Amino acid sequence: MKTLPALEQLIACFSKLPGVGRRSAERMALKLVSDTSGLLQNMTAALEATGRSIIRCSTCGALTERERDPCRFCIDPMRDTAVLCVVEDPADVMRIEKAGGYRGRYHVLHGKLSPMQGIGPEQLCLEALTKRLQREPIREIILALNTDVESDATAALIRERLNGCRARITRPAMGIPAGSGIAYSDAVTLARAFSARQTFS
Amino acid sequence: MKTLPALEQLIACFSKLPGVGRRSAERMALKLVSDTSGLLQNMTAALEATGRSIIRCSTCGALTERERDPCRFCIDPMRDTAVLCVVEDPADVMRIEKAGGYRGRYHVLHGKLSPMQGIGPEQLCLEALTKRLQREPIREIILALNTDVESDATAALIRERLNGCRARITRPAMGIPAGSGIAYSDAVTLARAFSARQTFS
Repeated sequence: MKTLPALEQLIACFSKLPGVGRRSAERMALKLVSDTSGLLQNMTAALEATGRSIIRCSTCGALTERERDPCRFCIDPMRDTAVLCVVEDPADVMRIEKAGGYRGRYHVLHGKLSPMQGIGPEQLCLEALTKRLQREPIREIILALNTDVESDATAALIRERLNGCRARITRPAMGIPAGSGIAYSDAVTLARAFSARQTFS
Repeated sequence: MKTLPALEQLIACFSKLPGVGRRSAERMALKLVSDTSGLLQNMTAALEATGRSIIRCSTCGALTERERDPCRFCIDPMRDTAVLCVVEDPADVMRIEKAGGYRGRYHVLHGKLSPMQGIGPEQLCLEALTKRLQREPIREIILALNTDVESDATAALIRERLNGCRARITRPAMGIPAGSGIAYSDAVTLARAFSARQTFS
């Protein structure tokens, strides 16, 4: 492959995608060059269009289109302005929307504290969050972060920063996931599920 | 996602790559839009360059660059012109090169017989193969096709077409793969490995 620089470059790009190793990246690149249905051209156009049109909402940080800023979540009059859901990643917004049920607004941090990767409080969209709290009639902040150590540290930092603000700070329930069971749950999950046990009615 | 057409289009393209399902495609697309290291731009450029520069060698069908046709395998004076390795796919050329050891030339069929997908003999680069046999001093043809039913049918077709040609037709040995064993081999593999057993010296 070394003698086909364009292909080598494409494989290197694919390798950087989540869950894609060198061999998968090679298979993808080779599929694209051997495909005769125009997939390579379509993908080039889709990437180009994405790079051109998709931006972060200037209010909440979710993904939106250049001509729709603030995003549809921020301008939707049917959504509850009193509840703000804080997430790490724009993809989390999409996952929560897919699950349905949540009708408040969002705030995307765009990352979590990670000293190893040089991500401190300044790299996260925290300043904007504090400003929104002053400006918007927010009564509840749901910290919908992940459940690993770095996310826990991020949640703790936010709680500290928001100390004294009048909004109630909550987190989604932690426990045994649907379709799983005791046998598949690790010790921390089980301990949390037991301490947060609910009346079975 | 439905409200961001560019992203939806990108996800649809990724979903068409081998081994990529809807969820992986979403993760990849979201990584690209949230990445701040320029990956999206690099990938757009790499795809564009690949589409522009990578072509099939007019002699053997392997991948090459527009300005290097015939390809490096066809023009390399160190390679044996008497041995021709027939493969299904340009990627197979790269795999065989990576394995090392083979120093002949190649011929890429660009597919295999597949009535289900409407691929008959006319869709394969067979005409070009017959012409090469008349023109080049080929003494051995290695049919390095896969070992499934469609590839076997393709191999049988080629043997029939080349009936009467003076070149010897061979296939790579079939048997138990390296790093595997009896327990992991299916019945056909085992039967072939036993019938082609070799003296242990």
